Amino acid sequence: MRLVSLSEVLPGEPVTNADMAARFGLHERWLDAMTGNRTRYFCRPDGPPGVPRSTSDLATAAGEQALLRSGLDPASLDFVILTTASPDHLMPATVNLVADRLGLNDIPTFQLTSGCAGALQGLYTARALLAAGELRRGLVIGADTCRNLWPSDGAIAQLRPAEMVSFALFGDGAGAAVVDAGTDGPGLVVEHLFTRTVGKGRSPAQIVRWYGAEGAPTVAGPRGEPVREAMSEEDYKAIEQHVPEAARAILDELVAVTGWPVDDVEHLLIPQLNGVMTEKIRRYLGVRPEQAVSCVADTGNNGNALPFIQLNRAMRRIAAGTGIGGRLLVTTVESSKWVLTGMALRHRPEEADDVR
Amino acid sequence: MRLVSLSEVLPGEPVTNADMAARFGLHERWLDAMTGNRTRYFCRPDGPPGVPRSTSDLATAAGEQALLRSGLDPASLDFVILTTASPDHLMPATVNLVADRLGLNDIPTFQLTSGCAGALQGLYTARALLAAGELRRGLVIGADTCRNLWPSDGAIAQLRPAEMVSFALFGDGAGAAVVDAGTDGPGLVVEHLFTRTVGKGRSPAQIVRWYGAEGAPTVAGPRGEPVREAMSEEDYKAIEQHVPEAARAILDELVAVTGWPVDDVEHLLIPQLNGVMTEKIRRYLGVRPEQAVSCVADTGNNGNALPFIQLNRAMRRIAAGTGIGGRLLVTTVESSKWVLTGMALRHRPEEADDVR
Repeated sequence: MRLVSLSEVLPGEPVTNADMAARFGLHERWLDAMTGNRTRYFCRPDGPPGVPRSTSDLATAAGEQALLRSGLDPASLDFVILTTASPDHLMPATVNLVADRLGLNDIPTFQLTSGCAGALQGLYTARALLAAGELRRGLVIGADTCRNLWPSDGAIAQLRPAEMVSFALFGDGAGAAVVDAGTDGPGLVVEHLFTRTVGKGRSPAQIVRWYGAEGAPTVAGPRGEPVREAMSEEDYKAIEQHVPEAARAILDELVAVTGWPVDDVEHLLIPQLNGVMTEKIRRYLGVRPEQAVSCVADTGNNGNALPFIQLNRAMRRIAAGTGIGGRLLVTTVESSKWVLTGMALRHRPEEADDVR
Repeated sequence: MRLVSLSEVLPGEPVTNADMAARFGLHERWLDAMTGNRTRYFCRPDGPPGVPRSTSDLATAAGEQALLRSGLDPASLDFVILTTASPDHLMPATVNLVADRLGLNDIPTFQLTSGCAGALQGLYTARALLAAGELRRGLVIGADTCRNLWPSDGAIAQLRPAEMVSFALFGDGAGAAVVDAGTDGPGLVVEHLFTRTVGKGRSPAQIVRWYGAEGAPTVAGPRGEPVREAMSEEDYKAIEQHVPEAARAILDELVAVTGWPVDDVEHLLIPQLNGVMTEKIRRYLGVRPEQAVSCVADTGNNGNALPFIQLNRAMRRIAAGTGIGGRLLVTTVESSKWVLTGMALRHRPEEADDVR
């Protein structure tokens, strides 16, 4: 499978830590020190026309951009996959709203529920669909409006500390890839790709709940008093403890399979929890700053979108002349219930056809 | 791909129309006439131990039952797919909770968001994973707690008529299939399988929303008064009008591809909207009562579970001596945003190995 083109969509203007302080009553210095994120982006349901307001808006824009960059006719697509943790609705699947808006019809569509592992799970599924032989080309989109996974603006200041830490690191966004069964054109050729659950006997390190029209039920608070159930729970300590070693296990496997010495790999896409954690992981893995392709400090953690955005930025580096024809290794760790995914790709330049 | 074994899980005791009248203030005769459903099953979060209380409980039980019937060691499974419209949480994906409880680890897991099309989309994805060659065997589960897609018991009597019609036809349940790349053993061999969106330019005929901790926002009611947004919307007229013709289109395609004369097909699994609609569709398609494999009048419409339950009941018929070695055609229509799926299978008896 070859990634023919990539895209990246971030809604509206960057939201700075000063903006976060003013809007949610958070402390700017705490945000700087705790998350290391400088900016993130949020969909606004009441935002100006043309600015994405929802997961389907983000996904549609990312799909359009990837299609435009591929130079392909939308009619040549044989399937669409959307991965998200924050769909517009429970039903219909958001992917079918997106397909309609992209003008796509009479093709298989799939929506995967996932978080940080979603992008690579989507690509894994795409690779299987292409390998089966009937389908030749598809669109894989990752999109999330993480803002919707927390309460309204006015209620943020009342979040418990563990929820606040989680809220502070997220953002909204989308990315996409047009994928092709043929590996002979320009783009990124997938040489290895895996996804696997490793959650047996381990507690989820993140839970995000959904509710019906009546909202969260009342549960007993720390002193037995009635409180509204928390929409989100996070075990940040478990994440801090286990994600770096999980990232190393993925990287080791990719290196073992490809035989690529990690020091020589031009583009290393490492897990994007937040600015602070991603930098810690980079050092733990012994990845040099110029090898790392990171964006979370600017984009916030936008879940299913992030690996597409990292791939898009790797392509920008390549377009600017860095690591043309080189290798990319992608590692993502989903801590919600512990899913590891990894991918090895090689850049195939435009001129590769002539060289052959 | 071959379906090695099937399963069916319905939580607790059947809920009769008299029970529905007592619990929700609905009219028994209206339920009889409007839905044609006699019973359905609901998970109860406070139910007795051992009785499924959630989508993950249902899915785990269905997975266990299918595995037990397959006679296979769980360790021989290479992947798990869950399809649902009513996950336990937004994160983590419910499939990873289910994999843990089934003792499965170090394998790819996927969760598809879908409704009536979900079971066949899950099987389609499984077939692609198997065709790619690395994976040999997997578990595909469809599960839904549709009860959670509507407000609490006390609020049901206040639903608008269109919501009430929708609420009345649903139920909870799960089903699963163990699938194998090898077509040489006993079970149901898939001869044709497709899924496609046909929603271009068409409004969703069903929307079910999810909310955060604060519940549904206030919107303007019919007379401009403030009311809580409806969690669910259904265009029952569009469903009545379009589902029968969609079912015919699917059936025609399956017959064209397989060359099986529809009058000779032993088991016809037709769309299971509710008892009334399913009977209308059966007549519209010219399917004889003894050909049709229907269960919705007894199980309620439990979404992603239903086609697995129909397949399970077809296997029961076969085990009882009806249509051994025969053909099965499955048609499902998802009206939420118009997805058509179809599948043709042939039963391969236990003794088929000796006959060859």
